[in-house]
Amino acid sequence: MKLLRFGPKGQEKPGILDSDGKVRDLSGKVADFAGAGVSLEALEAIRAIDIASLPVVENPGRIGSCLASVPNFFCVGLNYALHAKESGMDAPTEPVLFSKASSALSGPFDPVVIPRKSVKADWEVELGVVIGKTALYVSEDDALDHVAGYCTINDVSEREFQIEKLGQWIKGKSAPTFGPTGPYLVTADEVGDPQNLRVTLDLNGETVQDSNTSDMIFSVRQIVSYMSQFMQLQPGDIIATGTPSGVGMGMKPQRFLKPGDVMEIEVHGLGRQRQETVAAD
Amino acid sequence: MKLLRFGPKGQEKPGILDSDGKVRDLSGKVADFAGAGVSLEALEAIRAIDIASLPVVENPGRIGSCLASVPNFFCVGLNYALHAKESGMDAPTEPVLFSKASSALSGPFDPVVIPRKSVKADWEVELGVVIGKTALYVSEDDALDHVAGYCTINDVSEREFQIEKLGQWIKGKSAPTFGPTGPYLVTADEVGDPQNLRVTLDLNGETVQDSNTSDMIFSVRQIVSYMSQFMQLQPGDIIATGTPSGVGMGMKPQRFLKPGDVMEIEVHGLGRQRQETVAAD
Repeated sequence: MKLLRFGPKGQEKPGILDSDGKVRDLSGKVADFAGAGVSLEALEAIRAIDIASLPVVENPGRIGSCLASVPNFFCVGLNYALHAKESGMDAPTEPVLFSKASSALSGPFDPVVIPRKSVKADWEVELGVVIGKTALYVSEDDALDHVAGYCTINDVSEREFQIEKLGQWIKGKSAPTFGPTGPYLVTADEVGDPQNLRVTLDLNGETVQDSNTSDMIFSVRQIVSYMSQFMQLQPGDIIATGTPSGVGMGMKPQRFLKPGDVMEIEVHGLGRQRQETVAAD
Repeated sequence: MKLLRFGPKGQEKPGILDSDGKVRDLSGKVADFAGAGVSLEALEAIRAIDIASLPVVENPGRIGSCLASVPNFFCVGLNYALHAKESGMDAPTEPVLFSKASSALSGPFDPVVIPRKSVKADWEVELGVVIGKTALYVSEDDALDHVAGYCTINDVSEREFQIEKLGQWIKGKSAPTFGPTGPYLVTADEVGDPQNLRVTLDLNGETVQDSNTSDMIFSVRQIVSYMSQFMQLQPGDIIATGTPSGVGMGMKPQRFLKPGDVMEIEVHGLGRQRQETVAAD
């Protein structure tokens, strides 16, 4: 299933793509996609609905984030060898974890706002994992049984805030609109193997990131199992699994986002995003 | 006002302490304390209720976390000079930020579970700040206008996971029960100056942390303003503002939690916590 949310910001309704690619309105059947609303049980209940019986939305308009909110917006760092190298860091021997503020969550076509005093705003296409079942001390063998589905994420990052400010990376990862997510939450059954998805990011029409999740150092299976040794993952938690090489920080000379830039981002099979960057008020 | 939540885990009801120190049941008036439920507007609505008209709860039983859930569980690191020193780090020149998984949130009297493979579980009494109003690019002068109230927090930490594992601190801060919060959310008007509160932690009856929020390097006002330059704070977000010296990691020899240890934690005026530590299943 490809689940989505359509409508003006803050007033989105849940929907689903039908076999003709049309949006059907699920708002009469489910409250919204967030937390327990994307648990494996909730998805099973949606699967039991006769999609053809749902109202067609002829003009869905704006597509919002595929999740209304997230209990946690977790991220994995340096999970592609070439990206670790371009970042001037060693390839990690175990997953590097950090988080974004949950308020960074944003729609896949909404403008990305460059924060005040930002000089190093950067892009990062990533495979997003949405948790569907509480996970604590889960083995690698069982890890994928806890995944509701997958989505495209842009893990927008401000490198000065992230790296040059004192402390931890969260400062550079958390600005409003720094987490475009969607357009679709594609359920795990429809994705199959999450380690064989092409990931691309075009900046102003030029492809600057082009890789495949087969190049991830730690697989989704390993990440979910590893994280569950340190924390209890919850339905609706999102995990951005790391970006491949080709970010602005790694270019020579370095290149950062300026107002008017256009990012087109895709985890192939999960839906394409497009954001224009604007300056903060 | 002193707001609290009482009842079995997962079935807590919202309540309020009356002028005799009795718990009154607010569940007929408000849904729960989380997110918009602790916005400044929501607190104003509670303030307008005649507390004496609410049912007295003669036997409230278990007291849960004063918040049902948190959009973000933010933390400030190294915010007392002596604690930075005992941690072997310089006193920071700007706030150090990190986060706990939101699933670490726990009741003030619930057992603290030492995770599997943990060998360095440690304690940290902290002043907690609960956000009551969306905050982005807020000045220090205006910062406290965005605070709903304050609470006692134990920022339980696993030092090997936090510091010796690769990457960021979140790994050592996020285990289930690592965020005892409450018993009370004390509204800002009742606290007055948040920079004049004694903070203490007794381990098995021995006082090991004893300081005052007047010793914080960065005040609540500065922290809220600073954070709002990097992210949009939301009603219901919690910020643990850092711990004073006296943690186990700083002792010579170092001392860490073992099953059966008892922590008694208090930000004086905000209510006392008590947790016994147990091993994970």
